[in-house]
Amino acid sequence: MLVSEEFRYEMPTKIEFGVGKIDNLAKYVDEVNGNKVLIVGDPGVLKAGIIEKIEMPLKKAEVLYHTFSDIGTEATIESVDQAYQLAEENQCDVVIGVGGGSSLDVAKSVGLLLGNGGDIRDYVGLDKVPSQAKPVIAIPTTAGTGSEITRFSVLSDKKAKAKLSVGSMFNCPTIALVDPALTITLPPHITAATGMDALTHALESFVNKETQPISEALSIEAMKLISRSLRLAVVQGENLQARKDMLLASTMAAMAFNTTRLGLAHSLAIPLGAKFNIPHGVVNAILLPEVMQFNLIGNTQKFIEIAKIFGEKVDGLSDLEAAEKAVAAIRKFNEDIGIKQNLADFNVTEEDLEEVAKEAMLSGNTAINPVKPTIEDFKDICRAVMD
Amino acid sequence: MLVSEEFRYEMPTKIEFGVGKIDNLAKYVDEVNGNKVLIVGDPGVLKAGIIEKIEMPLKKAEVLYHTFSDIGTEATIESVDQAYQLAEENQCDVVIGVGGGSSLDVAKSVGLLLGNGGDIRDYVGLDKVPSQAKPVIAIPTTAGTGSEITRFSVLSDKKAKAKLSVGSMFNCPTIALVDPALTITLPPHITAATGMDALTHALESFVNKETQPISEALSIEAMKLISRSLRLAVVQGENLQARKDMLLASTMAAMAFNTTRLGLAHSLAIPLGAKFNIPHGVVNAILLPEVMQFNLIGNTQKFIEIAKIFGEKVDGLSDLEAAEKAVAAIRKFNEDIGIKQNLADFNVTEEDLEEVAKEAMLSGNTAINPVKPTIEDFKDICRAVMD
Repeated sequence: MLVSEEFRYEMPTKIEFGVGKIDNLAKYVDEVNGNKVLIVGDPGVLKAGIIEKIEMPLKKAEVLYHTFSDIGTEATIESVDQAYQLAEENQCDVVIGVGGGSSLDVAKSVGLLLGNGGDIRDYVGLDKVPSQAKPVIAIPTTAGTGSEITRFSVLSDKKAKAKLSVGSMFNCPTIALVDPALTITLPPHITAATGMDALTHALESFVNKETQPISEALSIEAMKLISRSLRLAVVQGENLQARKDMLLASTMAAMAFNTTRLGLAHSLAIPLGAKFNIPHGVVNAILLPEVMQFNLIGNTQKFIEIAKIFGEKVDGLSDLEAAEKAVAAIRKFNEDIGIKQNLADFNVTEEDLEEVAKEAMLSGNTAINPVKPTIEDFKDICRAVMD
Repeated sequence: MLVSEEFRYEMPTKIEFGVGKIDNLAKYVDEVNGNKVLIVGDPGVLKAGIIEKIEMPLKKAEVLYHTFSDIGTEATIESVDQAYQLAEENQCDVVIGVGGGSSLDVAKSVGLLLGNGGDIRDYVGLDKVPSQAKPVIAIPTTAGTGSEITRFSVLSDKKAKAKLSVGSMFNCPTIALVDPALTITLPPHITAATGMDALTHALESFVNKETQPISEALSIEAMKLISRSLRLAVVQGENLQARKDMLLASTMAAMAFNTTRLGLAHSLAIPLGAKFNIPHGVVNAILLPEVMQFNLIGNTQKFIEIAKIFGEKVDGLSDLEAAEKAVAAIRKFNEDIGIKQNLADFNVTEEDLEEVAKEAMLSGNTAINPVKPTIEDFKDICRAVMD
């Protein structure tokens, strides 16, 4: 909790947290002065009956809406184009995104385009969006991405096998409707992977060079909630208290990293995910312990704090030994929640590493990592989790 | 960190933290699309040369401004009327408030009136403001009130010897310019009193019935910063690190209580302050240990956590004994920073308590206190700190 020299903190999104919040959805559409809604979801939430749960309160209140659910496991530029066209044709003025990161990122992109016109490719990068988006209500159904409050959208360009990132405070949703009941039916492996994504957010923000006491406070609490409840959410999916903890932890981690950004796990996760089709949470979970090991000497006291949050005993240990306990704790966490993959399982080979490392080096997250990496360092981190 | 059933969290104000931030003031005026500025300060900041420091970067950037500094130690309705008139006459479209709570509360009120018209008396209460205020840039020079980001303004009606409160999310400043260098010259007794106000905010929010993990995380970090640095800021006024800690703690405490509200210390502090002219921080500091003692059984685990944050050893103690250590810690804190007054020093007598207690009972903060008080309880709390 060393107070940084200077920083900016802002959080434009209003958070509504609670079981059953979606029943009042029409009220929130009214709050943002919406007349006609575009609902954006994915086939998963459609199949799970969640889109129906979203439509019901709108029907009841006679709010007009259209639904777009043609989204894969990743948000693609093509989905954004199609959803935007549907919204334009029907003069929608508010977008409700419901689902995991991909649905929310498409919904946010449509909101940006409705407010600014043009093509989503124009806004790739940091702070390229000229003005306010149309209102977006984001309803997460996984506890991981944090996209319900962040300024970031990650979009896949399938042809280029690349992920493009849009980052702008205008991209923060207007309202995040955070309803833990929606996460109860998530299967264990998705609960595990998305939970590790949330943990990576909280942890990478906590140790990077942009961290400051506001984000630290949020990271610490998020990690405490995850330490207490991620295992439970995986092995007792119906445990509502664990689901509440995890969903709130995910949102709080996003409140932290939304201004501070992340670290090397994310620098590598983006190109690895894009090229080898590895789910984002899984690739983060695979990388995180190795990245922590690499970063230990760059922020030792913080890693000791992490070790304590995850229940490790550090009395009598040297500082570096105590910090290493944090790495051991996260490895054990992966094991307990069943994340046992490595990069070779996704067909990553030694020959691919040069290109991945070069892309990772260019990430904004690399510049703020507590230890400055070389290309060889990136490769070594990947080699350590290759098989 | 028990996750509440449901809550709303929002923070419309952007925080810019750092030494020297005011040098870029013209940039922030531009960010909020301001053309003509009303600066609102008090005679204290005028005398300390701080208003000059505010005017300088505006002059340099050729931003037009008018200055109003006819404010006493408390924000009065009359000051609001006068400042609003000056702003209207000169077609100001952005207000810069600089000073302690009184300057900021007048500035926020002028912003509300410029955006909504009418009379500030129309907006007294909770959520009575119909729409957006004109942009307000709040620059605190004391580390206590948190008014730079809260939805509340407390205004004195001198004739009625009452304090009126305006509470609306539209009342949150647009930007909080949080520059610790401005607090370096605060004398010890004001540093102490305002610091205890910040502590009361963090602590009352932490134990009340509206608390939730986001506010808890912020309260905990604020209390840690205060525990580490309030004594230092009082006895080593020039200690910039201590000043940074305290100013950020004050802002973070406000990020917590802005949505959760407070407790009985504030229920009593408002009528006692209004009737007997007791500085807000001082009356909070006097009341806080007794209110904590009264509240112990309503949230014992939280008080144990507070005891630990303030460095108390609780191993081997029963829960209630451990919780009592928190009360002892705050009493010692008051002593160390030189707050030795009691209510009799401000001419409060037994005969006054009935009226004070009745007013305190009506406060919104009373309904959310962890222990439900009777009129007699309020009187007993006051009696314990009478002399």
